[in-house]
Amino acid sequence: MSDGDEGNAAYGHKAFKRSRSHFADRITADGRDGWPVEAGRYRLVVSRACPWASRVLVSRRLLGLEDALSLAVVDPIQDDRSWRFTLDADGRDPVLGIRFLSEAYDRRETGYPGGVSVPAVVDVPSGELVTNDFQQITLDLATEWTALHRPGAPDLYPRARRDEIDTVMAQVYEDVNNGVYRSGFATTQEEYEAACAGVFRRLDLLTDRLAGQRYLVGDTITEADVRLFTTLVRFDAVYHGHFKCNRWKLAENPVLWAYARDLYQTPGFGDTVDFDHIKRHYYEVHTGINPTGIVPLGPDLSGWLTPHHREELGGRPFGDGTPPGPVRPGEEIPAQGRP
Amino acid sequence: MSDGDEGNAAYGHKAFKRSRSHFADRITADGRDGWPVEAGRYRLVVSRACPWASRVLVSRRLLGLEDALSLAVVDPIQDDRSWRFTLDADGRDPVLGIRFLSEAYDRRETGYPGGVSVPAVVDVPSGELVTNDFQQITLDLATEWTALHRPGAPDLYPRARRDEIDTVMAQVYEDVNNGVYRSGFATTQEEYEAACAGVFRRLDLLTDRLAGQRYLVGDTITEADVRLFTTLVRFDAVYHGHFKCNRWKLAENPVLWAYARDLYQTPGFGDTVDFDHIKRHYYEVHTGINPTGIVPLGPDLSGWLTPHHREELGGRPFGDGTPPGPVRPGEEIPAQGRP
Repeated sequence: MSDGDEGNAAYGHKAFKRSRSHFADRITADGRDGWPVEAGRYRLVVSRACPWASRVLVSRRLLGLEDALSLAVVDPIQDDRSWRFTLDADGRDPVLGIRFLSEAYDRRETGYPGGVSVPAVVDVPSGELVTNDFQQITLDLATEWTALHRPGAPDLYPRARRDEIDTVMAQVYEDVNNGVYRSGFATTQEEYEAACAGVFRRLDLLTDRLAGQRYLVGDTITEADVRLFTTLVRFDAVYHGHFKCNRWKLAENPVLWAYARDLYQTPGFGDTVDFDHIKRHYYEVHTGINPTGIVPLGPDLSGWLTPHHREELGGRPFGDGTPPGPVRPGEEIPAQGRP
Repeated sequence: MSDGDEGNAAYGHKAFKRSRSHFADRITADGRDGWPVEAGRYRLVVSRACPWASRVLVSRRLLGLEDALSLAVVDPIQDDRSWRFTLDADGRDPVLGIRFLSEAYDRRETGYPGGVSVPAVVDVPSGELVTNDFQQITLDLATEWTALHRPGAPDLYPRARRDEIDTVMAQVYEDVNNGVYRSGFATTQEEYEAACAGVFRRLDLLTDRLAGQRYLVGDTITEADVRLFTTLVRFDAVYHGHFKCNRWKLAENPVLWAYARDLYQTPGFGDTVDFDHIKRHYYEVHTGINPTGIVPLGPDLSGWLTPHHREELGGRPFGDGTPPGPVRPGEEIPAQGRP
């Protein structure tokens, strides 16, 4: 999750530690937490800058949940009241009618003192936050929202592969998804070196794994790929320089660069990525590590659409299913920043 | 030149502007400024971190002036009294007997209020600074110190090519040597973008120029190559991330990367380069753009010694001369950071 405290974390006196999600209710088919799956009832709030929120963007596209779960996109730049709807007319989300995501948190728990993070799922009728549990939301989209999936939706969390998927995701989370943050927000040389070395140690292992197989687990796209992708797509744009994960650029690693391009070019992945939001968020918000707020011109993004040749490894991206259709009108990424 | 004001430049309210050298006396064969070329009389003071000082390190090696012009290497980390001899026993330069380079400036001009910069040439008998004119020192080593050159020394500033060399060097200075600093120390997005775009515009032109010819001017190594090299060798290590010159890494540009490796592997170039000094200086000293002072682990430097195949373009690196011999004992770079 991305919250307003990230920038400050760089000034803490201990290692960067990601907060656990406070609101962990689940939206399920049987509604056991009081939140049944229901088309049109919930609103997904994301920042396109945020890798944790972007997982949900990808899963929602792959599963065809756009009609069932509407989307609100916040401004990539938070102010001191955190995420805000300043991209919308009048600075208000047109469905929830609020100016700040914190208003949905407040409606759920008055005076909640924690950070405001995305992804967040809000109950439209009550305006209350349901969950900001970035580790659970996509799993529930894959397994609890099945009645609302599009025809041909892939199985992103196949029961027979869950142990392996969970293992891979746990390693990727610790060393890569969160490792880049521990590297970037380290306050001592030692903390930084441990985190950065861990990022590349894990990326080396993933390189070996992906050299001969198209996807992380089995021969189809799974939740594990979604979670690795959202970090890899940000790697050269922000983690390499801004977070000092600079042993090499993704574009210098033939295996991972081809893997990332393969996913990027798969409907549902690259069409959710807004490099402009990504770069402006990291470089403008984290003044603790980039005091000038200057946003770099690079990297050159033209490579993302070059041939990757990963189809030669076989694999069935969507298993017995099919790719998602075009992006929902109104949710297209402006051409800026994209190749 | 590198002086103590660089870090502060990032906080000025106008674009970064490199100060002119204040002490521009020349050491000449005829001694017309009062400083005749004389073996053993002068001491060269450098930081191995500094690209301007490193030009002199390369020229001195190529020309075989090590015995004639002795060398003092300062600590890559300045304190508030600027460059210091804290790498030497007791923190004093063993020849000049001073703890700070500023003492040689003071001896020349009491209360000089400007920055203390390297490269600096100091008159050993009087302890006075002679010159810190980073644009002139190497030209004078090439043309005025000829009586002390080693047998087989190359002509780094051949008379017949001077117009072309001067033109190329002026373009490289403005857009590349100094352009990376204007990019890194920009205080506004506009300043940064103009500088960074200029860096890559010029590098693109240099790529075209060097695609079919081994060296910048003629078919031998000249002063123009020395000056481009000292920026290129720092490019991926510091300018790419720290100064946000990140359209691409040098290692992603096949022509310039091969050109830089060719020079790096030529005696007199790579053997003067201390990546540890370079990285620590930039990342620890410029707290205005890297407040944590954390020094990145990357980039992977192992590529510098890989084959470059530039000899296929022909060229005679040293013209009618020969390569310099081994590094003078005591001036070797520790293995750290070097491939």
